[in-house]
Amino acid sequence: MTSRTQPAPDVPRKVLSAAGGVNRSLEAMEYAVRGQLVLRAEALARQLSRRVPDSQPSPSESPLPFHSVVYCNIGNPQSVGQKPISFVRQVLAAIMCPTLIAPDAPAVFPSDVVQRARDVLAASHGVGAYSESRGLPFVRARVAKAIHRRDGFPSHPDNIFLSNGASDSVKVLLSMLLRTPTDGVMIPIPQYPLYSASMTALNGAQVGYYLDEDNAWGLGVDELQLRLDEARGRGITVRALVVINPGNPTGQVLSEQNLKDIIHFCERENLVIMADEVYQKNVYTEEKPFVSFKKVVSELRSQVELASFHSVSKGVMGECGLRGGYMEVLNMDQYVNELIYKLFSVSLCSNIVGQVAVDLMMTPPEQGDPSYELYNSEVTNIYESLRRKAIAMSDGLNAFEGVRCNPSEGAMYLFPRITIPPAAVTEAKNLGLASADVMYCLEMLEATGICVVPGSGFGQRKGTYHFRTTFLPSEKEIPGVIDRMHRFHQQFMLKYS
Amino acid sequence: MTSRTQPAPDVPRKVLSAAGGVNRSLEAMEYAVRGQLVLRAEALARQLSRRVPDSQPSPSESPLPFHSVVYCNIGNPQSVGQKPISFVRQVLAAIMCPTLIAPDAPAVFPSDVVQRARDVLAASHGVGAYSESRGLPFVRARVAKAIHRRDGFPSHPDNIFLSNGASDSVKVLLSMLLRTPTDGVMIPIPQYPLYSASMTALNGAQVGYYLDEDNAWGLGVDELQLRLDEARGRGITVRALVVINPGNPTGQVLSEQNLKDIIHFCERENLVIMADEVYQKNVYTEEKPFVSFKKVVSELRSQVELASFHSVSKGVMGECGLRGGYMEVLNMDQYVNELIYKLFSVSLCSNIVGQVAVDLMMTPPEQGDPSYELYNSEVTNIYESLRRKAIAMSDGLNAFEGVRCNPSEGAMYLFPRITIPPAAVTEAKNLGLASADVMYCLEMLEATGICVVPGSGFGQRKGTYHFRTTFLPSEKEIPGVIDRMHRFHQQFMLKYS
Repeated sequence: MTSRTQPAPDVPRKVLSAAGGVNRSLEAMEYAVRGQLVLRAEALARQLSRRVPDSQPSPSESPLPFHSVVYCNIGNPQSVGQKPISFVRQVLAAIMCPTLIAPDAPAVFPSDVVQRARDVLAASHGVGAYSESRGLPFVRARVAKAIHRRDGFPSHPDNIFLSNGASDSVKVLLSMLLRTPTDGVMIPIPQYPLYSASMTALNGAQVGYYLDEDNAWGLGVDELQLRLDEARGRGITVRALVVINPGNPTGQVLSEQNLKDIIHFCERENLVIMADEVYQKNVYTEEKPFVSFKKVVSELRSQVELASFHSVSKGVMGECGLRGGYMEVLNMDQYVNELIYKLFSVSLCSNIVGQVAVDLMMTPPEQGDPSYELYNSEVTNIYESLRRKAIAMSDGLNAFEGVRCNPSEGAMYLFPRITIPPAAVTEAKNLGLASADVMYCLEMLEATGICVVPGSGFGQRKGTYHFRTTFLPSEKEIPGVIDRMHRFHQQFMLKYS
Repeated sequence: MTSRTQPAPDVPRKVLSAAGGVNRSLEAMEYAVRGQLVLRAEALARQLSRRVPDSQPSPSESPLPFHSVVYCNIGNPQSVGQKPISFVRQVLAAIMCPTLIAPDAPAVFPSDVVQRARDVLAASHGVGAYSESRGLPFVRARVAKAIHRRDGFPSHPDNIFLSNGASDSVKVLLSMLLRTPTDGVMIPIPQYPLYSASMTALNGAQVGYYLDEDNAWGLGVDELQLRLDEARGRGITVRALVVINPGNPTGQVLSEQNLKDIIHFCERENLVIMADEVYQKNVYTEEKPFVSFKKVVSELRSQVELASFHSVSKGVMGECGLRGGYMEVLNMDQYVNELIYKLFSVSLCSNIVGQVAVDLMMTPPEQGDPSYELYNSEVTNIYESLRRKAIAMSDGLNAFEGVRCNPSEGAMYLFPRITIPPAAVTEAKNLGLASADVMYCLEMLEATGICVVPGSGFGQRKGTYHFRTTFLPSEKEIPGVIDRMHRFHQQFMLKYS
């Protein structure tokens, strides 16, 4: 073919380009949890791994001052050594390869695993077929029953929508709410950037409300009212309130009275409640058990429109990679329920393995089942370890000079406040960085290999600086992580003081 | 609590409601493949299943004139009996439950399955951890190698983005392209409604181009030029061209010369090519082997921006429920590549099981591997069966009076054209139905239990009527399906003649 050696025809310019060639809202979007810090961490990790085979750094690579990159940037427990729950994985393996549980096959799994897998296969076309758009009916029915058991109030399977993690459901709901650029949704500051990023992409107005750092990251209704009124004064039609409970990145757990006040506020102000409750099993304080919005809305017989989100990625399963989650809606118009159904249809359905994982999370083995003992010991060990790590890490951070950290009542994160010397703030400005905490985190990464996320990625009061760190590394590693952070912090303070 | 017995506080109205309460673009969206027909089919299926336990229809239920609902509405092979490929499921079960392949565990899988699973586990944190946003690096590297083998031209792992099926990638690309309501993308008529639905949701302009039914659903560049010029005349900025090859719902396979012409057209007119190639393994004609856009673009040394899509849902694997797929981009600005990365980040990553399934699809066992013989026989059987069913079904349909059906060169569908009597067209109008083929399909469903999708859901020339049917039911069932369709068709024609 002659064209092989000819130059390409003259293409005037790229269609998709930085010069106005792509949707501006998407360009404006920020997602710090997977941002600049993480890209740099991945580059460092590659540098380290290249040195492993022959242990000889290539001349161009200066040796790094650490031996491993520690990812504390994201709640991804199994990436830092947490083991999966055996029962969950056994059932999923059995439905993946049903010959493993054929009647004539040698027994490789406990009998309740086999039964559970057979039930799934009998009630579905297996993991290889699309399900109904909102998820397998029998999974939705069982999730509804589990919610009933949790809260004492019924749940309807047709109000359950299974999705790839919780994120997809959150995006669907936001996309319905935001009709024009003057439609707004209230989100906490600090918040999980899924919300800010999705709203930027959807070109909606973010109405931030501050959590009270001096009061254990409390959520006050006075603050909600203030920010709502301000936003309305600016011409924003505020349509919904996002509450993350337990908090991300802040780790606070809301009391039942607090939920009541929030519900009354949303009723009065006509707001949909979006309750991000993915950390409901990650509560480390006995004084404040997790209470779902669904329960309190039901107790109050409130008609407020509610969407609550849950996921297999967190809790003690930590099955991030399976991408399973659900949204339960309550008090929604039937029209709206059908619209959600249609929006889910365009993605056909969420992955079936993740759907079944949701069922296994919501209805685990019971006392007396062959798998119960192992299940219970695995779950207890993971939970107790998380709890100890949360305390060890916040105690450790609070011992740093110029660092103050609320303890984690729940979730998987700490959000310490750091005092940054004025010289460092100036230096960050000179470097063109968005915030001084970005520089702090970048320098921490280069010095220690520990990857955390700057507070500015989540939002914070002007003039304050934070970072978010998980407490997910193994218990053996935690003291070393704290120690590396501490030495870095001292050097940073010295450097810029 | 006193509030339990009190009526709920007065909520003025629902926030989310039909009365202007939700994003209008989403309300306007249509997705026929999972629309009205399917909802009715599911209701009928429930009616049938309720009658099974005691075989006594409840008094309110009139017995249906069929014993089963046959879903021909969607390319979902495993829902209608297709078996999964053993090798694929064994590897996935092993990575799901690594104790199955522990050194001391009894051997339940062939040695190449064990090795493959160990490789996956060694190169990742297993299926329970989030991967890098665009997918596991080693899977992307292997996909790139497989594309190189397929086409003879290199592929770069950083140009591969793994997603939950192909749909998510398609939506990401469209969302980048469509900046304002006057930005448009060319889509075939008829087309797979993912494109029209996503574009309606994104508020972009759909620029339809007709496939030539009388010429085996051919894609002519003259037609592309005509529709492009028309759209530009209306003030539309046309930015991309969607080509589905093999066609959905139309089943045509494009020749290499045709691809060249299309590429030259897109170069000349500065359009991004979106190549939906998910049916690349579903080609049933020896005269027109599948040729990828990537290959021809590379041969021509063209600089045209290309995104091509592939999925584990189709081919011979038919693993719809796993939700695995990839997008390969070529000739994109680095800025744009990074923007795609960011957009993927907000969903964290696609499910890992689906990612590994993509690897297994692209790099199957080779001759000499312990699993090869079984793999090869399973794949061959499924492929040959699909091919025979495609022929049986189009031959069957072409024997109906007033039905004309192009044979399927590829994919999983037939799109027969039906002559609908004027009285039926009038009746459909009186019933307020969008098109007479909706009535035809609804009546077919009620009479036969066979669920197909009206042509109007895909787009068709004004005054013509079609439906889309898969040819996926088992070979044993196909004659019965054709027979039921035939008897219905005769009755329909009689009723309205």
